[in-house]
Amino acid sequence: MAGNSFGRIFQLTTFGESHGMAMGGVLDGCPAGLRLDLASVQGELDRRRPGSTPLGTARRETDQVEWLSGLWTEDVDHGQAITLGTPIGFLIRNKDQRSADYDQLRHVYRPGHGDRAWEQKYGLRDHRGGGRSSARETACRVVGGAIARQLLAGADVYVHAYVQQVGDVSLGDFDPARLTQIWNDPVRCPDPVVSARMAQLIEQMRDEGDSVGGVIAGEIHGVPAGWGEPVFDRLDADLAHAMLSINASKGFQMGSGYRAATMRGSAHNDPITHPPGARRMNSGGTLAGISTGDAIHFDVAFKPPSTIARPQRTIDRSGQEVTLRAGGRHDPCVLPRAVPIVEAMACLVLADHMLMQRLSRVEPT
Amino acid sequence: MAGNSFGRIFQLTTFGESHGMAMGGVLDGCPAGLRLDLASVQGELDRRRPGSTPLGTARRETDQVEWLSGLWTEDVDHGQAITLGTPIGFLIRNKDQRSADYDQLRHVYRPGHGDRAWEQKYGLRDHRGGGRSSARETACRVVGGAIARQLLAGADVYVHAYVQQVGDVSLGDFDPARLTQIWNDPVRCPDPVVSARMAQLIEQMRDEGDSVGGVIAGEIHGVPAGWGEPVFDRLDADLAHAMLSINASKGFQMGSGYRAATMRGSAHNDPITHPPGARRMNSGGTLAGISTGDAIHFDVAFKPPSTIARPQRTIDRSGQEVTLRAGGRHDPCVLPRAVPIVEAMACLVLADHMLMQRLSRVEPT
Amino acid sequence: MAGNSFGRIFQLTTFGESHGMAMGGVLDGCPAGLRLDLASVQGELDRRRPGSTPLGTARRETDQVEWLSGLWTEDVDHGQAITLGTPIGFLIRNKDQRSADYDQLRHVYRPGHGDRAWEQKYGLRDHRGGGRSSARETACRVVGGAIARQLLAGADVYVHAYVQQVGDVSLGDFDPARLTQIWNDPVRCPDPVVSARMAQLIEQMRDEGDSVGGVIAGEIHGVPAGWGEPVFDRLDADLAHAMLSINASKGFQMGSGYRAATMRGSAHNDPITHPPGARRMNSGGTLAGISTGDAIHFDVAFKPPSTIARPQRTIDRSGQEVTLRAGGRHDPCVLPRAVPIVEAMACLVLADHMLMQRLSRVEPT
Amino acid sequence: MAGNSFGRIFQLTTFGESHGMAMGGVLDGCPAGLRLDLASVQGELDRRRPGSTPLGTARRETDQVEWLSGLWTEDVDHGQAITLGTPIGFLIRNKDQRSADYDQLRHVYRPGHGDRAWEQKYGLRDHRGGGRSSARETACRVVGGAIARQLLAGADVYVHAYVQQVGDVSLGDFDPARLTQIWNDPVRCPDPVVSARMAQLIEQMRDEGDSVGGVIAGEIHGVPAGWGEPVFDRLDADLAHAMLSINASKGFQMGSGYRAATMRGSAHNDPITHPPGARRMNSGGTLAGISTGDAIHFDVAFKPPSTIARPQRTIDRSGQEVTLRAGGRHDPCVLPRAVPIVEAMACLVLADHMLMQRLSRVEPT
Repeated sequence: MAGNSFGRIFQLTTFGESHGMAMGGVLDGCPAGLRLDLASVQGELDRRRPGSTPLGTARRETDQVEWLSGLWTEDVDHGQAITLGTPIGFLIRNKDQRSADYDQLRHVYRPGHGDRAWEQKYGLRDHRGGGRSSARETACRVVGGAIARQLLAGADVYVHAYVQQVGDVSLGDFDPARLTQIWNDPVRCPDPVVSARMAQLIEQMRDEGDSVGGVIAGEIHGVPAGWGEPVFDRLDADLAHAMLSINASKGFQMGSGYRAATMRGSAHNDPITHPPGARRMNSGGTLAGISTGDAIHFDVAFKPPSTIARPQRTIDRSGQEVTLRAGGRHDPCVLPRAVPIVEAMACLVLADHMLMQRLSRVEPT
Repeated sequence: MAGNSFGRIFQLTTFGESHGMAMGGVLDGCPAGLRLDLASVQGELDRRRPGSTPLGTARRETDQVEWLSGLWTEDVDHGQAITLGTPIGFLIRNKDQRSADYDQLRHVYRPGHGDRAWEQKYGLRDHRGGGRSSARETACRVVGGAIARQLLAGADVYVHAYVQQVGDVSLGDFDPARLTQIWNDPVRCPDPVVSARMAQLIEQMRDEGDSVGGVIAGEIHGVPAGWGEPVFDRLDADLAHAMLSINASKGFQMGSGYRAATMRGSAHNDPITHPPGARRMNSGGTLAGISTGDAIHFDVAFKPPSTIARPQRTIDRSGQEVTLRAGGRHDPCVLPRAVPIVEAMACLVLADHMLMQRLSRVEPT
Repeated sequence: MAGNSFGRIFQLTTFGESHGMAMGGVLDGCPAGLRLDLASVQGELDRRRPGSTPLGTARRETDQVEWLSGLWTEDVDHGQAITLGTPIGFLIRNKDQRSADYDQLRHVYRPGHGDRAWEQKYGLRDHRGGGRSSARETACRVVGGAIARQLLAGADVYVHAYVQQVGDVSLGDFDPARLTQIWNDPVRCPDPVVSARMAQLIEQMRDEGDSVGGVIAGEIHGVPAGWGEPVFDRLDADLAHAMLSINASKGFQMGSGYRAATMRGSAHNDPITHPPGARRMNSGGTLAGISTGDAIHFDVAFKPPSTIARPQRTIDRSGQEVTLRAGGRHDPCVLPRAVPIVEAMACLVLADHMLMQRLSRVEPT
Repeated sequence: MAGNSFGRIFQLTTFGESHGMAMGGVLDGCPAGLRLDLASVQGELDRRRPGSTPLGTARRETDQVEWLSGLWTEDVDHGQAITLGTPIGFLIRNKDQRSADYDQLRHVYRPGHGDRAWEQKYGLRDHRGGGRSSARETACRVVGGAIARQLLAGADVYVHAYVQQVGDVSLGDFDPARLTQIWNDPVRCPDPVVSARMAQLIEQMRDEGDSVGGVIAGEIHGVPAGWGEPVFDRLDADLAHAMLSINASKGFQMGSGYRAATMRGSAHNDPITHPPGARRMNSGGTLAGISTGDAIHFDVAFKPPSTIARPQRTIDRSGQEVTLRAGGRHDPCVLPRAVPIVEAMACLVLADHMLMQRLSRVEPT
């Protein structure tokens, strides 16, 4: 109810404030008997970590996941575990908290942030680093998503995301083989030439004390036909929900998306082939909210980070106008570090629907 | 779980197939003591009804809502009722069913429709008029949304939607006063000149046996600061979920949306003013997923209807290629009739968050 | 949230007031492909119907279930249907409403009923026949339960309930074969000699203008080991929830129940055998909330009906003391008609857990 | 879905195995602005702790709660905190784990425990100390319940539980003032003479290597009329669910409970008075599932602990018969340590319904 859980069966609940003791989560509903590579989960977390790319914030967090429950680690190789079917509790300690950086923000509302809305909702807020509304919360989503990914791998379902646009620098066609090497690229863009231009733009923003937005694309291979619940919990509706729940996201498109607005039906209707394949479809891989067996394509728009070095006019709690010069450490562009988060959320949605699909027939397939 | 319910507290469950006995719904969680104007609910339903605009399908349904429970109608004027706090059950009989029109579709998969995906999910399907995946299901959402709207009106919250784009015909600035007269316009567009061009394009599509997509904009006035749950159930994430659950929708944007991708933080950050107002904000009226008190703006992309008169190549159940010539009756553009659905879904989201907001503080405000 | 839905996956939502237009429900989450015998569902409803036993109320309702959606009836025998996987909507019209019988109750609170509590909760109430809190609501549970029963039959799971005690007349050992003939007995008691004494006591209560309570036992055969979720949603906890949600129920016991309070561990621990069987276990067939494979046994205590013919002292809305002489029609003992409701609720719980159990392992069994 | 969460709005999710790293929980939905006395939460936990009474297990755990999130501790006295409205994460480290004690149980099923059912559900289990099905899990419920209690105190609602019966030693009338001193009594029984006899019986069980069951009573004062949702989520149904979810519980009664089975309506109907009071009602304080404003009374039956020192016959994983001599440390009677758990679960149910009641009317009261 209070919005800190995601998923119906494969359900992640997260907790933690940016500058509190720890971030953490509970993953409930992960089936028993899943052999987990814990080092790989940590590896995914490292991709989101501050410091994972030279283009990000200067905050340094080791973001070491600490496993608390739900895993059986006897009789298996070191760094491996088997899920018990019980809730998987984990936490990530906050270490490099410079809360004093935020003292000036105690009574001031930062433009583009939820400070005032938050305070008007709850009557009080933890102002340090954005408290619970910090993007630091997404570290827990990456842990949950990494477990979901390993569950999906058993069904030959693979999720990829990459940076498609930064400011006005856009990606064109690219070699699909590069998707598996995305983490070697500082921008997380599969075309090295375009990536270099994006990186340059991001650095320019940092130099100018400004920030820039962009678009992340997601594609999912291997989903069989039939995932997604009709009417309200369509696969695309759940993906939209998941993506708009990521900090700084502003839009979501499935397949043709907004291009569909200008298209005619005779051009938009994808040919029905037998069997479905990996081609990019206008449908984006779902029809009537259910996966068709084709590759799934979507993308997500992100705004430029609201925290910028330039002085900004705002107001304080008493309604007085003040000039804000941002302390704290921040990213001039969230895109590179948001790629693992988009993947994590997509993995959570798919794992949930994979399990829900077990319930659709009297004789499960 | 099976995806036929929407909302957490103010929860609508719908049922019904396009060519079955009836469509219907249960609205649970509507607080007691709401004085409902039932004629107004029927009026909203009439706006979505086939035949409500000359631009739509030829199917004729009176779409008369039949109230079954949850309402107290003694001691009040005719056409009025008071909610009892118990579930409001209602149904809409299907009348003008020409199921025979769909006989040829029993073993054929229509391009752009979920026929095959549906069959692969459940093992069987009701092929008549799309069965449960028919847009006819949305009639029940309009009933639920109309009740939500009356609850919201008590909090001075008002929801408007309108057609912003059809194919390549787009709306520019317009007189806000026209929003209240939108139902007099056949396209549901607030600028009569643009509307005429849109109507012309839609008629052209009908003549050509084709169809066209577009964009519907939504705006909401009067939402106080503080609605929306942080992290996963942000107000914008719930709106995205709601909008992508509408048949034929392909994308969702909040405020600046995809434009934010090319913007800089210094330009994107809205100024914080005191008090908030009705201006169009880049934020779209939420920050960190919580309403700021500013007007809320979003839009939704719709694809061109998949059912077109032109012959199309497809396959049948046995995998044989066949040519499909669509029978049945259909709209060359869903936009005009989707406007009340966008409004209904927005009303459902807001009513739910209005009630959730009662839970956020020890001392409710 | 508002308490009109039951079940997590196999979920029944009910609506309707006793003297409104209709009672009804939506069963969501029933898997596709279940061949339903609709006549058998109606048969179960007939067992709960007023008039189903000479020992019950004089109200006459045909309680004819009207199917609205979710069923495919082409290509199958008459009276049969196949579930589509979509929500099954149904209603039962109210016909023999003598609302005028209740006029005197408009401003008076009946002892033993929720009239005043209801009014204090919602600010208003439908006083006619108890409105939504009437036992008439349970007709919808019987419909949902009857569908659940047919799903369970496919897994060789069978649910039986019977009257074990009326007032101080108790059932001893009995021939298990009689359980399948329970509906031929007016009291729904498997021992004809005991049943006759119970019937006599019930008739005596009617003659004296009074009422009497009792106990219904439930037993379930064929549940394999492994159903039930640990910790909060144990199979026994869900059964307790289900049973205490039935009108007039006051207690629930699993297996040894309250007898366990006086037992020693060395006597209470059931022997673990291989394989499990149909014997009555102290455990009642669950351990740690999970089915053991043994037969499941529980029972439910019911209070004497609160509506009695004798004059009773009470107060009216203004706080004045008044004497109430009950009009309306009522049962001197709810037990016979509550047996199908206990069965229905047990079926709903088990169908839900049967489906949940599909989610417990990476490789479903 | 997987059963590790309790509550709809005020929702506790727990995790942890008895001999894993830690037990813990997340409390989501606690309103913002609640001033929490953390020392008092720890104090409640101490009452459940092994070692809290001389009558319990020899396992020694300090059970120190570690707060991770959701609390604001600046500007308040030491040991105090204010809830932020965000999820409250906490953990309790496992320290005195003698896992080796359980080595012999790895392949053996303990009588009266869920070992085999658990293994048949999940395919594997953590055999050490019962893993997740250990009563140690309830420590997290006590933390959640203690927070609920402080929320309820603000509404003048007070929850008490006490031991009413151990074996055949039962409590009669007692001085209500003793309820507030219950924690000074080793048995948690409000009559010192009866308590002494109960303690003697428990010690005798320990000497004999056996165990004994009993009954815990609960009473709740100050609940206003109107809490509880009609039909499925009645206040009494939720209490039954809560109580049957406690390890070793076998039965639940509300008010008159099983005594109602032998009563007549004329005797069972409580007089309706104005205003309601603290008297013990046959109703137990709810009618139609809604609180009446009267004191709430219920009780819960517990079985004798299944782990006893005496040798028992059982089978191992291969189906071989073996004799089990219990290692590990255990209680000869769970009652004294279960009292805080019964209170915690009752507090969780009530806090949830207190918040739900805010949703029942258009104009909240």
